Parts: sequence; C-alpha cells; structure tokens
Amino acid sequence: MPTTTDLIEKKQRGEEISSSEIARFVSGYTMGKIPDYQAAALLMAIYFQGLSRAETAALTEAIVASGETVSYPLDFAPILDKHSTGGVGDKTSILLVPMLAAAGYRVPKMSGRGLGHTGGTIDKLESIPGFRSDLSHEELLAQLDQIGCAIISQSPELVPAEKKLYALRDATATVASQGLIAASILSKKIAAGASHVIIDVKHGSGGFFKRKSEARHFAKFIVNLAREFPPSVMAAITSMEQPLGRTVGNALEIQEVIDILKTGDAEAEVARLSMLLGGALLHFAGETSNRGEGEAKLANTLRDGSAQEKFRQMVSAQGGRLTEFSRLRETIEDRTQRVEVKAPVNDHVRRLDALSVGRLCHRLGAGRNRMTDTIDPWVGVILKRKLGDAVMQGEVIAAAYAPMNSP
Amino acid sequence: MPTTTDLIEKKQRGEEISSSEIARFVSGYTMGKIPDYQAAALLMAIYFQGLSRAETAALTEAIVASGETVSYPLDFAPILDKHSTGGVGDKTSILLVPMLAAAGYRVPKMSGRGLGHTGGTIDKLESIPGFRSDLSHEELLAQLDQIGCAIISQSPELVPAEKKLYALRDATATVASQGLIAASILSKKIAAGASHVIIDVKHGSGGFFKRKSEARHFAKFIVNLAREFPPSVMAAITSMEQPLGRTVGNALEIQEVIDILKTGDAEAEVARLSMLLGGALLHFAGETSNRGEGEAKLANTLRDGSAQEKFRQMVSAQGGRLTEFSRLRETIEDRTQRVEVKAPVNDHVRRLDALSVGRLCHRLGAGRNRMTDTIDPWVGVILKRKLGDAVMQGEVIAAAYAPMNSP
Repeated sequence: MPTTTDLIEKKQRGEEISSSEIARFVSGYTMGKIPDYQAAALLMAIYFQGLSRAETAALTEAIVASGETVSYPLDFAPILDKHSTGGVGDKTSILLVPMLAAAGYRVPKMSGRGLGHTGGTIDKLESIPGFRSDLSHEELLAQLDQIGCAIISQSPELVPAEKKLYALRDATATVASQGLIAASILSKKIAAGASHVIIDVKHGSGGFFKRKSEARHFAKFIVNLAREFPPSVMAAITSMEQPLGRTVGNALEIQEVIDILKTGDAEAEVARLSMLLGGALLHFAGETSNRGEGEAKLANTLRDGSAQEKFRQMVSAQGGRLTEFSRLRETIEDRTQRVEVKAPVNDHVRRLDALSVGRLCHRLGAGRNRMTDTIDPWVGVILKRKLGDAVMQGEVIAAAYAPMNSP
Repeated sequence: MPTTTDLIEKKQRGEEISSSEIARFVSGYTMGKIPDYQAAALLMAIYFQGLSRAETAALTEAIVASGETVSYPLDFAPILDKHSTGGVGDKTSILLVPMLAAAGYRVPKMSGRGLGHTGGTIDKLESIPGFRSDLSHEELLAQLDQIGCAIISQSPELVPAEKKLYALRDATATVASQGLIAASILSKKIAAGASHVIIDVKHGSGGFFKRKSEARHFAKFIVNLAREFPPSVMAAITSMEQPLGRTVGNALEIQEVIDILKTGDAEAEVARLSMLLGGALLHFAGETSNRGEGEAKLANTLRDGSAQEKFRQMVSAQGGRLTEFSRLRETIEDRTQRVEVKAPVNDHVRRLDALSVGRLCHRLGAGRNRMTDTIDPWVGVILKRKLGDAVMQGEVIAAAYAPMNSP
C-alpha cells in the first residue's frame, strides 16, 4: 500500500491522485493517523500543482463523508442557501435570509466566523446581546417550520475534515488554491442539505479574487464541479472593490441591516445586492419565470415590512435582544472613540479601497488573527460617502469607532 | 514582525528570503517555537521555488549556529574529510580513512546511519561486534593523536537543526531539493571542523542524482557555496550505475574492505575509487604536487600493510572485535540462507542496476524505513561478476544472503 510520502511525491510530480488515495488521506488525516506536517506538505504540493476537477470532486466527497449530512422534510423544499467568497462590509446574508423567508421560502443558513480582514456573519449577529448560533438540529427544524429561516454556525458534526484542513491551510499559507477553496465551499454546502445554492464570487481589492477574470474562472470551476453533487449550484460574480454598503464592523453592520429593514429601502446597496442574488436564486430554483420577478417579490418583503418582521422573529427565536442592542448602539460613544475623516477640498470620492478599510477595522479589533482571538463588536467604520460621491470641503466623509484606549 | 505564514508566502511567490528571516526560522524551528506543519509547508515551497546561493548560505550558517562546532589542535592540520551523496555498496570511507591515516594525515570522519536503499557507514562498522561510534570529543582527540583516524557518528551537539529538518524532509518528500541538500551536507562538514573536504557526488541508478548533468550541477553549486565558509571544499563526480565493488550489505561490505586491506589489492574497484578521491584531496590540500602523487602515496599504504594496520588500530580503539567478526563471517550460513543466481547462457553481464540491488538488500533487512527500525547486519548480496564481465552458462554470478525464515 502506498505511503503518505508516496502520495505527496505523486502530487509533487504533477500526477493525478486517485479518488481512493484522496479518501484515504482525508480520513487518515481527520482521524489523526496522518500527521499535520505530512498534510501540510501535501497541501503545499497541491498549491503548486493544482487539483483537477476529478481530484476536487473526490476531495469534496471525502470531506462530506468525514461527518454527518443534514436533511430536511420533503415539504420544506426548496431549501435555499447562499455563500459568499468573502468581502468587507458584506452583511448580505443577514438581510437576504429574512427577505427570502418573508417571501415564503426555507433558508437554514449556516455561516462562519471571521478570520483575517473579512468579517463573519456569526460574529456580526453575536453583537446582538443573547444571540445564539448553536441551535440543535431539532431547534433548527422547529424554527424553520415556524419562522422559515435561521442563521446558525455550522454544527461540529458536519465536515470535520474541512475544519481541520482549513485550520492547517490558514497556518501554512495554502488557503489560496482553487481546488481546495472549491472543495471547502462545496462540501459545506452539500453537508448543509440545501437544494438550491447561489455562490457570490467576489472580485476586487477586498475580495479573495483580485481580478474579475479569476472570479469568473473560479465560478465556472465550482458550478461545473457541483454538477456531480445533489444541490443545484449557481454563481454570481460581484465587485468588492469598495466596502459593501455604509458600514464595516460587527455591530455597525447589524445596525445598517436594521435600518434598511426599518425604512424598507430597496435602493440601499445591500438591499440591491440581496435582491440581485435572491432574484437569481428564485429563478434558478424554478420559483419565478425570470430574475426580475424574483427581485420584485423580494423588494416587496422590504416595502411591506414582512422582511423586518422575519428578522425580528429570527433574532428573537435565537435569543437575541434587539432592544438591548439598540440601547448599546445609542451609547456607542461611551465605549469607543469616534475619529472623523473630513474632505480636504470640494471634490468627489476617487478611491475607497475595501482591503484597506477591512484591514483598518481588523486592527481596531473587529477581526481575528487566530480563531481563539476575541473581537470587539463595537469598533468599525461608517462610510458617509462612497466611490464617485461628491464631497464638500470640511464635510465628514467617514467615521471610525476605535477602542477607547487606543492612541 | 513578519509571521511564519508571511515567510511561507514569500517563498511561495518565489521571492528571496533574507538571512535574518532564515536564521529566525531555523532557530524557531529547532527550539520548537515553529510547528512541524509550518516548517513542512515552507520546505515544500522551497522544493518548488528553490533556494538561491545567498539563501542556501544563510541556511547553512543558521544550521551550523544551531549547535556546537568541533575544533582541533593547530598541529593536527590538515584535517581531512570526505562525504558521499550516497550509493549502493559504497564502503569507500571505511577503506580511505585508514589509508589517509597510514599516509600520516588526521581524519576524524563523522558518518551517518542508512535510510532507504543506501547503507550507512556506521551501520556497516557496527556489524563488527563491540564497535562504538559514539566517542566523546576527548576520546576522539586522543584517538586522532595516537592513531590518526576515527569513524564516528555525529555527536548530538552538532547541527541539531539539520537532524530535525532532515527527519521532517524525509517524512514530507522534500529531501530532493538542491539547496536543502547542499545546506545539509555543508553544515555538517563545517560543524565537524575539517580543513579540507572532498564531496563525492554520485550519479546513476543507485545515486541520488540520476543524471551526470545533475551531479555536475550540484557539485558546482556546493563548491561555489562553500567559498563563503572555512573548510576548503572540492567535489568529485563518480558513477553509481552499478553497485560499488563486490558486496552490498553491512557485514559483507566490511569483509570486502578487510579483504582489500589484507591482500593490499590496489586494483580493487573500492581501492581505485578511494585512491582517486584521496589523491585528489591530498593534492587539493597542497600535500602533493599532483593527484597521481597522492594516489601513489595511498596505494603504498595498501601494499605495505600500513593501511591494514591503521584499520585494525582504529577498530580496536573503538571497541571492535575483528576476530569475533571473522568467526561470524565464516558461519554466515548458519544465520542466513544463501540464494545463488546462475548465468542462463554463455554471455557477459549486460545490466547490473544499483538501485535494484540496493532495494533488494533493503528488503532483505539490511536497511531501514524509519530511523528506529533495526537492521540485520548479515543479509546482503555478493556480486561475483560485474558489468561487462564474461559469464559461463551455469556459473554463479551473484549470491544473496537472505534471512533464515524468509520464503
């Protein structure tokens, strides 16, 4: 039987690894029979030599097989899901999930915590006092039945191999490999049991893919890969050149979503992206005859207040206390120091770099370097003006909320 | 301060790592502050992107700095040393070291144990009952003073980083990287304190480098690299297409050396290579006016019995009991089963593949897969005929000594 070093050497030479070799590696690594250092060497060889479609499919399957798979009652269908490759200020799921539920769909969204300069949906929601993301499967089913949606963290029983591999990739600079990213995303979506999934592949400064061509290439790759698996998967390609919406930072982003829901502002940037993704997904799932129809359906949930109601129900069902959150938001300046950026001349915003803003927030304490780091929910940035907006000399164009004791 | 992942990413991109980054990595890894998996990822990135001369020099220096460095009394000069990149049946050091000592030079040779299909000099010598390779520095100095030579295993105080890195490279398929190999060899030679070193770079089936051009390239690289360090280093390029000499296997190879020393056979293949390397080294060290003169000097030590005497003194000083060894050799067939290979027709030997013979001996139990495996000193192969030799139908051309209970 070939050893792990034989497997590493095979990938080093650029040869294709068989499905059974990949399955043996993933189960061996997950069970602790293959040490981290051999897995790290293989990941780095994969980084340089890539993974074919067949290898990526085998890896995806092996990762799914490492844990449990969620399934839902047939009458819940379609089960909708959405994934973003990550960005700065990307609070789309928090708005879109209740919008879809208000339109009558089931959306059991599993999300992650943030690492590096991109925030995590769960971190954002946890800035609401009391919010619980660790629902049991029974709690989740009951909430889907009663409310239609939930945003929860992934249960530890799903894709344990993915978690172990991701932590290793993060520590060994092997995250940025198309096949590894695709297998990681797709395995989670398969295990989560949705019937229809849209993947928002972001490009630009704050996204994982810097160039649109890379994002397009990846989108094609993962959609093609997904043909071998149960969920129907589509991809959208969107820009992450500047931060999404008006806020970056955990609580500030929740407040932005609350404001959009309250005003029913379907023209807000985050609302527009939510409708774009949701409309495409509804059409893709055969629920509407075109994208526009889906978008209109979702816009209605904003305007008639039903999306706001769903959001409140969902947060409250998961233990979140929104009144308390609002009180904390009103007193944010008791816990942070506000630093304003003013326009030096009359002009317009020429550059608003998502990565720089993301990194700034990260340094202020909104993000983590390691999964064990704690974050400060109240630090962040408010963008009063965005790319192309006219600004007047002396006008506040952005404000940062920094920790009280920072210089 | 840049993190280890920053360093891995830098090498991933093919950029040059600075001397201080390399020094920090080596000391961090040796002290256990950098985990194996990050080191494995870096090694694999190095495997793909290579190391420049400056990076290799910095790595060599950092490895030397991880431990102690041996030094010898000035009146011992020149201190001669020899290294082989490894081969099958390569017992050259065991013959050359006493030859050089018989010619009046000091040769404190540090050797390793075998891993994979190439045997280790220390393993071979340990087939002599009682032979000790772990001399203290004081014992080594006394032996060099009285006898002139010693063959010992490397003290654990020298290049600890090299040992830790080599074990990791072996487990992660990252041995085969020119810069890593050069730093590994050179750091050991620097720490061992010789003044003049010859490196025998072998090419062909049983050698590390399969093609002569690769061996030549490596020889140039390491000689050029060594210019930055104290010992004067030269390289020889020799063939390892067929096993060296008449035997492969630990005790059998010792017997071959004993036979050459006893008969003073300067024409034996191992004697010829020893004289070639030793003659070149003596000329390189300025001890003779040309290589031939050095070779003649060494041939004399064989013919006049002085090399044999040195060998006996050395083995006996290190606790080895040669009489007991001879008795065991005479009764080898009590502990092994002999399998003969006979010529099927009148012809000549057309092919004698070093790697195949090396692997056969390894499987018979002469080698290790892991450093903790035990080996059988008495198994191995005797080659009665070599490449190009005429053979008669039915004649024994090779004999293998296999373990008693093997099928």
